Amino acid sequence: MERPFVFINSAMSADGKISSYLHQQVRISGREDRDRVALLRAESDAVMVGVGTVLADDPGLRVKAPHLRRGRSDRGLPEEPLRVVVDSRGRTPPSAEVLGEGCIIAVSRAAPEERLAPLRDECEIVVAGDEKVDLSELMSVLKKKGVRRVMVEGGATLNWSLIEAGLVDEISTYIGPLIIGGTGAPTLVDGSGFSDDYPKLELLSVEPLEGGVLLRWHFHR
Amino acid sequence: MERPFVFINSAMSADGKISSYLHQQVRISGREDRDRVALLRAESDAVMVGVGTVLADDPGLRVKAPHLRRGRSDRGLPEEPLRVVVDSRGRTPPSAEVLGEGCIIAVSRAAPEERLAPLRDECEIVVAGDEKVDLSELMSVLKKKGVRRVMVEGGATLNWSLIEAGLVDEISTYIGPLIIGGTGAPTLVDGSGFSDDYPKLELLSVEPLEGGVLLRWHFHR
Repeated sequence: MERPFVFINSAMSADGKISSYLHQQVRISGREDRDRVALLRAESDAVMVGVGTVLADDPGLRVKAPHLRRGRSDRGLPEEPLRVVVDSRGRTPPSAEVLGEGCIIAVSRAAPEERLAPLRDECEIVVAGDEKVDLSELMSVLKKKGVRRVMVEGGATLNWSLIEAGLVDEISTYIGPLIIGGTGAPTLVDGSGFSDDYPKLELLSVEPLEGGVLLRWHFHR
Repeated sequence: MERPFVFINSAMSADGKISSYLHQQVRISGREDRDRVALLRAESDAVMVGVGTVLADDPGLRVKAPHLRRGRSDRGLPEEPLRVVVDSRGRTPPSAEVLGEGCIIAVSRAAPEERLAPLRDECEIVVAGDEKVDLSELMSVLKKKGVRRVMVEGGATLNWSLIEAGLVDEISTYIGPLIIGGTGAPTLVDGSGFSDDYPKLELLSVEPLEGGVLLRWHFHR
């Protein structure tokens, strides 16, 4: 299957949590890491999140810095990458920040039309899969739209689904200098989890940054 | 309160898990890391685990390598550090590997005597706390026994209880090159979790090791 290059980017605490047990955002990284993330976003053709992240944090997923927008225009690209929400049941609220030009909501055939109707003016709807979004099919659709590089910005469930489907090439994690703790706190990779044949990684780089450390891992195939 | 220096040592996957959702041990680190851990153990006055780890893995917590045992004797120490199990309700099985000379089972006053009776020949019982082991009191008891350095070898719940009580000075985590995943998989720090005032860490060292990376963190006070 033809698909784009896919990487996950996430910040986590020293104990592997991406937010608190209340599913509230925690400031894990500082200015330098946020600048790094903005650049990664500007260098991607699409950014992708799961609907859980939309419901919890309502991110805009925009490229805001004028120099990054200009840089994209200068390369003949739209000023911002596509924004893709993986949303099997069509739960994205019609007021979500992510909506607007350049937004794709990927749903399954199980998503009720009454939820999709109010979204149609604000985004493109891509249907892939029966009960859950077929992520391979979605990646193939994105590839056909010219997307070569997808940045996944969480959350824990989408990360799991993509890794389980063998669709991830790299993971970048910034490990921040704090402990969050909690059995119920979302981690970098949740879902049902592996119990054997754990996906193996190769460490590409280690970089101390703002009191924490940035790790880049490549998935072995 | 007078207490020993306390550090947690643990291996975790790149997504912060210390075992699979089945609570089965996963080989996260290799030979070099295991040698490092054996040395850390031999350099401690006590090693400590929670009863969950005893029930799941039945570790012996011994120092096995002859040169490490001899090194301790040469320094005028017993050949092995004390082995301490935090076990509020006295659930350690009488057949547990950890039992024997040099073993302390720390229980609360809520531990039923009929569970403790069969353990008394095999270990020292220390009672601290009403419903749960009072960890500060336990540390103070250990200090009075001459323990200056405690190595905590998990699991996720004991790590949480010690951190929540402000009793941990350092954490060493070896982050191995694999993904475990799973909402139900134990992480480095479980328990109820923080929702504000997250404990802050200082990164002491970063060392690539056997395809992963070893991080040492110090707790800010």
